[in-house]
Amino acid sequence: MNRVRLMISDMMKEFPALFEESMQEFIPTAGMRTPVIDEAMRYSLFAGGKRLRPMLMAAAYEAFSGEPWEQSQLLRAFMTALEMIHTYSLIHDDLPAMDNDDLRRGKKTNHIVFGEDMAILAGDGLLNAAFEVMSEAADRAQERQSDAVYAMTYLSRASGVRGMIGGQAIDVSGQYRDEKSVLAMYQKKTGALLAAAVVTGAVLGGATEADQHLLGIAAVKAGMAFQIQDDILDVTGDEEQLGKPIGSDEKRDLVTYVTLTGLERSRQDADRFLQESLDILDRVEGDTAGLKAIIASLAGRSF
Amino acid sequence: MNRVRLMISDMMKEFPALFEESMQEFIPTAGMRTPVIDEAMRYSLFAGGKRLRPMLMAAAYEAFSGEPWEQSQLLRAFMTALEMIHTYSLIHDDLPAMDNDDLRRGKKTNHIVFGEDMAILAGDGLLNAAFEVMSEAADRAQERQSDAVYAMTYLSRASGVRGMIGGQAIDVSGQYRDEKSVLAMYQKKTGALLAAAVVTGAVLGGATEADQHLLGIAAVKAGMAFQIQDDILDVTGDEEQLGKPIGSDEKRDLVTYVTLTGLERSRQDADRFLQESLDILDRVEGDTAGLKAIIASLAGRSF
Repeated sequence: MNRVRLMISDMMKEFPALFEESMQEFIPTAGMRTPVIDEAMRYSLFAGGKRLRPMLMAAAYEAFSGEPWEQSQLLRAFMTALEMIHTYSLIHDDLPAMDNDDLRRGKKTNHIVFGEDMAILAGDGLLNAAFEVMSEAADRAQERQSDAVYAMTYLSRASGVRGMIGGQAIDVSGQYRDEKSVLAMYQKKTGALLAAAVVTGAVLGGATEADQHLLGIAAVKAGMAFQIQDDILDVTGDEEQLGKPIGSDEKRDLVTYVTLTGLERSRQDADRFLQESLDILDRVEGDTAGLKAIIASLAGRSF
Repeated sequence: MNRVRLMISDMMKEFPALFEESMQEFIPTAGMRTPVIDEAMRYSLFAGGKRLRPMLMAAAYEAFSGEPWEQSQLLRAFMTALEMIHTYSLIHDDLPAMDNDDLRRGKKTNHIVFGEDMAILAGDGLLNAAFEVMSEAADRAQERQSDAVYAMTYLSRASGVRGMIGGQAIDVSGQYRDEKSVLAMYQKKTGALLAAAVVTGAVLGGATEADQHLLGIAAVKAGMAFQIQDDILDVTGDEEQLGKPIGSDEKRDLVTYVTLTGLERSRQDADRFLQESLDILDRVEGDTAGLKAIIASLAGRSF
């Protein structure tokens, strides 16, 4: 396991640059009359980050296809689309009417650089672009078309009101005051898109329906572990590790899993969710060693 | 032609209620934890209007399929998706950071009723829902799947930075100070989605590629006629006919086709665009009588 961990750690370090290069071929551009919106979309899309969601999609794909992610244009289109959806959600989340954040990962947020109106449009443009990229890929996919359409359907549900946007709506309305409703919010707001990353990667990689189902459950549990870990780090971590100021949840008077259950319970529950996720991945037919190592590494923040 | 016009006029009056009923079966819901976002999305989706875009899609479909629009679930899914895209663009356009409008069609705008944060999410939710609805329809479409995917690809391009969002970015950045750039802005901001309405209806109705191409050009020209007509009405119309206060363009110091070329030239050019659109529709194989009557009626605002 140590050798795999080391390889995975190297792979995870190299992945963002490879993935960013891969994205370039898919991004639609408005053209010469509207350079600003192109710039605004690219600013946030290339603002860094671990590229967690496309990495999980790639690992799930490789577990079943046996082919490196770089070799499938169809998969790379979906990885790009997923990151576009994640990025648009951050742009809109940061807006003054939402979280009103000036900085993200140490860089000025989109509306600070381009203005609020352009940031709204850049977010809209990225969400729309995600579906342009997936539709175009499905249009080219020929004998893989029905898999591509199914993957797009799955992802679109996960990013919509039944998933991420529904979670943001719970968040905005503040309707989560107990453990159960906080977990439900986490599951929608972050778990749904993480699960979609893993499941759509598996669909495109040729996983059976039974395995797709198991992977979805495993990814949701991993997402819970990540999110609770994030809440813990907001109290105990250092700013560099977390990528945002320590104590920002408390300062905002946010209800989190930690504020509701305490540090000790949170640590136990994060570990339990992680272990359940890894156990489920053991029951899957594909070669999930890479996927498991990534999830374990992310939950431990040990890279 | 008079009898067709009368029938069309009746059909256009009846269409919105029929279409609104048809939409009900497709709208995804967030569920019991987040009733507010469901309410916010429905508030704007059912806020009235002529339902111009889905009506054009239905007419184009009927021109080639020979089947009433009500009988195709695939088409009705696409009509719903198109109206969701149009609606989300209005919600985001009305936001304080954009046009800052409190009223639309005499009703409070989305952010006035639900707050700015929820209005941003409701817009995102509708855009996402449009692609959920189309993906799900394509997923079910079986032997029509490749047509459905192509139609979704076409519509996604028209609503993105190469189309509507690109046009909004030109609008927001104010980079249109001459006749040519105003027309380019109109073509993207409203023409692209109107063209997509007609072309995707034709694709789903089984039109040849040559006819799809002609219809796209005809629809863009019709869109120009509608938009210039709108500019003219802002100067000469009555408020009821226009649905917004007269003189609002001038009050905002907006550059429009009328402010650039004058009323007389604008009238001539609107007529010319309309006539060119109808002439092109005469060259199409399908039975475009209904489509032509709708376009003529809309350009004359005579219903």
